[in-house]
Amino acid sequence: MNKLFVLLWIGFIVILTTACSFAKNKPVETSPIPYILYLKDYGAIVNDGIDDVRAIKKALTDCNAKGAKMLVLEKGQYDFYPTFASERYCYISNNDEGLKRIVFDLKDISDLTIDGRGAQLMFHGFLSPFVLEGSQNIKFENFSIDYSRTFHTEAIILGYDAEGMDVEILKNFPFKVHRGTLLFTDGKKQNGELTTVSKSETFGSSHMLEYDTQKRETAYMVKDFYFSDINGFPAKLLGGSKVRICVPGLSGTIGNTMVFGPNHRKHPGFVLSDSRNINFYNVTINHAGGMGILGQRSHNITIDACKVTPSNGRMISVTADATHFVNCTGKITLTNNLFENQKDDATNIHGIYVQVIEKKADYTVIVQLKHQQQHGFDFMKPGMELELVHGKSMITFDTVTVKQVNRINKEITEVTFDKNLPANLEIGDAIAEIQDYAEIHIANNIVRNNRARGMLLNCRGKTVVENNTFHSPGAAILFEGDSFFWFEQGGVRDCVIRNNRFENCLYGVWGKAIIDVKAGIMENKDISRYNRNILIENNVFQIYDDLTLLNAYCVDGLIWRNNTVEKTMAYPKTGKLNKRFIVDYCDNVQIDDQNDH
Amino acid sequence: MNKLFVLLWIGFIVILTTACSFAKNKPVETSPIPYILYLKDYGAIVNDGIDDVRAIKKALTDCNAKGAKMLVLEKGQYDFYPTFASERYCYISNNDEGLKRIVFDLKDISDLTIDGRGAQLMFHGFLSPFVLEGSQNIKFENFSIDYSRTFHTEAIILGYDAEGMDVEILKNFPFKVHRGTLLFTDGKKQNGELTTVSKSETFGSSHMLEYDTQKRETAYMVKDFYFSDINGFPAKLLGGSKVRICVPGLSGTIGNTMVFGPNHRKHPGFVLSDSRNINFYNVTINHAGGMGILGQRSHNITIDACKVTPSNGRMISVTADATHFVNCTGKITLTNNLFENQKDDATNIHGIYVQVIEKKADYTVIVQLKHQQQHGFDFMKPGMELELVHGKSMITFDTVTVKQVNRINKEITEVTFDKNLPANLEIGDAIAEIQDYAEIHIANNIVRNNRARGMLLNCRGKTVVENNTFHSPGAAILFEGDSFFWFEQGGVRDCVIRNNRFENCLYGVWGKAIIDVKAGIMENKDISRYNRNILIENNVFQIYDDLTLLNAYCVDGLIWRNNTVEKTMAYPKTGKLNKRFIVDYCDNVQIDDQNDH
Repeated sequence: MNKLFVLLWIGFIVILTTACSFAKNKPVETSPIPYILYLKDYGAIVNDGIDDVRAIKKALTDCNAKGAKMLVLEKGQYDFYPTFASERYCYISNNDEGLKRIVFDLKDISDLTIDGRGAQLMFHGFLSPFVLEGSQNIKFENFSIDYSRTFHTEAIILGYDAEGMDVEILKNFPFKVHRGTLLFTDGKKQNGELTTVSKSETFGSSHMLEYDTQKRETAYMVKDFYFSDINGFPAKLLGGSKVRICVPGLSGTIGNTMVFGPNHRKHPGFVLSDSRNINFYNVTINHAGGMGILGQRSHNITIDACKVTPSNGRMISVTADATHFVNCTGKITLTNNLFENQKDDATNIHGIYVQVIEKKADYTVIVQLKHQQQHGFDFMKPGMELELVHGKSMITFDTVTVKQVNRINKEITEVTFDKNLPANLEIGDAIAEIQDYAEIHIANNIVRNNRARGMLLNCRGKTVVENNTFHSPGAAILFEGDSFFWFEQGGVRDCVIRNNRFENCLYGVWGKAIIDVKAGIMENKDISRYNRNILIENNVFQIYDDLTLLNAYCVDGLIWRNNTVEKTMAYPKTGKLNKRFIVDYCDNVQIDDQNDH
Repeated sequence: MNKLFVLLWIGFIVILTTACSFAKNKPVETSPIPYILYLKDYGAIVNDGIDDVRAIKKALTDCNAKGAKMLVLEKGQYDFYPTFASERYCYISNNDEGLKRIVFDLKDISDLTIDGRGAQLMFHGFLSPFVLEGSQNIKFENFSIDYSRTFHTEAIILGYDAEGMDVEILKNFPFKVHRGTLLFTDGKKQNGELTTVSKSETFGSSHMLEYDTQKRETAYMVKDFYFSDINGFPAKLLGGSKVRICVPGLSGTIGNTMVFGPNHRKHPGFVLSDSRNINFYNVTINHAGGMGILGQRSHNITIDACKVTPSNGRMISVTADATHFVNCTGKITLTNNLFENQKDDATNIHGIYVQVIEKKADYTVIVQLKHQQQHGFDFMKPGMELELVHGKSMITFDTVTVKQVNRINKEITEVTFDKNLPANLEIGDAIAEIQDYAEIHIANNIVRNNRARGMLLNCRGKTVVENNTFHSPGAAILFEGDSFFWFEQGGVRDCVIRNNRFENCLYGVWGKAIIDVKAGIMENKDISRYNRNILIENNVFQIYDDLTLLNAYCVDGLIWRNNTVEKTMAYPKTGKLNKRFIVDYCDNVQIDDQNDH
């Protein structure tokens, strides 16, 4: 009896301890296992076509209130409409700021797994699927996200002449031609007459890019065709879904797919702002109106066994980068993912520079976020260490600590330092955060058929890129950093690129080498060294022509060894004489190309 | 000696008391007269072309800190640019919501006169000149506001055919034609190449209206030509400032002025939100990107001896209504003003209806702000009395008191009443505030050459309109109110229109009578009476044809007496047989037209 009692007592203590350890800062739970809530208990029924936004909101409120650790969905389609979605003004780096309607609004939510169990989340209209802000320990798994009407539009090229191009717009991309302008719509009939205050909801478009319909990738060596600040295109309806785009200078191959890119990046799939420990496992992003996953000022992000891939026979998955990370810390892990057909790079990991526009007082400068899609990126905080960088040479010439910050508006901030402004600080110089730069591990991913580049490595933490396969129309790997156009802080310090396969890259116009190490250095090239300590080894380079494998500009420390070149006939020759290696203004570069034949 | 001492002592006490009474809740001032600050002391120098935004901000901060009662400007031009302007997301009824750059940000400022002393405030770019929010006892006097680049554009019609129209764009309205689209610009050269994230700043336009260049008014019987959700127009550059607009169906008179209206109302001149006792005296509004003065949920507004009038030979002054008041209380006074060439009505004074979209619980409904330019108009507060109105008949069938309000987003709100939902409440019914509706006095104003109507009288407080002169292309005075399109609450209860001159109105398409009493009543016309007790007397109606003087629909109580008709040859005959009076579904209407000949 006594022994049994003691055992029971020990058991009770164990259970209590376990419960407490799960509950953390929440009220103590009586259940010893993580508390699970089921979305079906909140009125969300799959495949019924009815808006599930309110069910999500109630379930998330309950997760928070009850300290639930997991929200479980089920296999089937959930539908989400803007009407009841919550709303917040969001600044999203490299995407478009604005007042967003958010479905999974995870602001300040912690310790939660959302397990889709195979659910398909279908978004209808201008909606932001997931927004995290100050969120911690969040895991997403086993679901997909898609939109019923994509933010881009696809059409088949029927022919062209000097004055325009005829296309047939594919179904599921509704449109109208109104008074000489082609506008993409949601296909719903418009209500009421047009008035001085009419606002129809169109899926604005402002650029075009041709894709090879058979190969399902950007057509060989095509260029983006950009318009200036428009929603739609000068056009005439030819009948049915056939439209003449009345724009001189368009060309393309008959039968190829013309993609009309959106004029905004309003709704990235997942936005992670000022969050920590965010995990993605087996999540598929079929579409988003912007990037797939955007992390900013966040710590520890893991994306494993996920896919960015188009659905329903579409050419395009997300309309911008698959993933993108700005001023992040901790560890960024991208493993075992497929990133295909997104309308921009697979990833870009960088910091942000502001520009000095005025020396206001002995200790104070006025700085500006210059790039429009960085507006509102308020990263400076008292106590933060900053580097001061000469704008034209990109040389870091001093460091300071922030004492005070006075935000004027989304572009302009007054910053007071802990010490006098250095005498050599000039208007036009750049300032960025010195931080515990993230460690990057990118392994076993497939990147293919997207627009532009594969991966942009611009983080000063240890960066390892291994066992990936790239088939990119531009550079497979790009290093950059400048303070005159993108204002992205880069400059690797310890970067290893090994055991990757580069399969017939550079079939497009976005880059001059398969591994392209650039920097926006316009002055003092002789001494400015921006990227450092890059090891490129044991990779296989499949090339269809004598392409440049490596371009290195203003690099200090680069080793190229034991890489293999395989020649293919995958594309026509470029007709250009390309050097295998370009090395300009570099120190300590060793190139051993004995296997390159 | 003693007497002198006593007198001095009394004098001192009087001065101290006076000073204290001026200082109110502020720290005690030593000056006995209202404390005056001068903008020149904050670094703003007139006519130097340099941005004065920071001077304004410092001066306003100081006014607040020091309890100054007056900020004095001086004669000459001040210039304002967006760079350092403060920023706030503003919902502005009947204009466009958004994140605004504000120059005179008067949020929570009280007891201040801004005396321009003849200053000309010149705004450059996307700027909101004045925004008041929770402001009290503010007076504006003796200055003008204008923009260096207007939000609309003007051109001369050169000719047209079935496929398009040739125009010559006037100088000071910079533009470009890029890839088949005419876009209006600020004339600055664009920096950098176009990319996936380019955003140039264009002055988006989406409608056209023809003006008579000689008469400086909308051309006889022309209609608005509306486009659907565009920024610019399909076009070809013909050379110089000549452009062909490639849009079928355009027509006009050669030599007339084509006005390209903006596709937004982002920057009204003055926004008064939730403010009290606001006075305008001798203020001129030459231009604004929206309405001239917009008051919402505000109390006591006086506009006296002001002008809304174009500058620099332009055809258009402000791009929407000269003034507009929504859910205002107290007294609204418009006296001795000139409202000309604004691109919409001279005034509109009304409430706002939300629509019932769901009965959520016994006491709770979900309502929606349906009109896009009313989004964010959160007028419901606990304790407020509301009227419940059948959507199709506009009959008020019940009143309730608000117990609780839960805002879902800018469109949707959950409202809990103090009692059970009435059994006859239906989806689609409308709800508006019952309030101490403003008393309206409109006297001695001149309204002319604007688009559309003169004045929209839709307020239930005592309304007197006297001694004004109207020359409006549409109805000079319109009464309306509906819950299916504009969702504006109207329905006068006591309205006097006397001693006004209506000079050759109705030369355009905006209205079917000079005094047009409408209501959006679609059911129960036999019993629904929306506007009540209208007295129209001692007015002079100059008419160029047999026009309808009065249209009365669903009115209870209207007297027409002692009005005079004068016939002119000012415009061609309409060719229509118009009844002098139209009276449908009315009770208690007395028309004495003995002077009408």
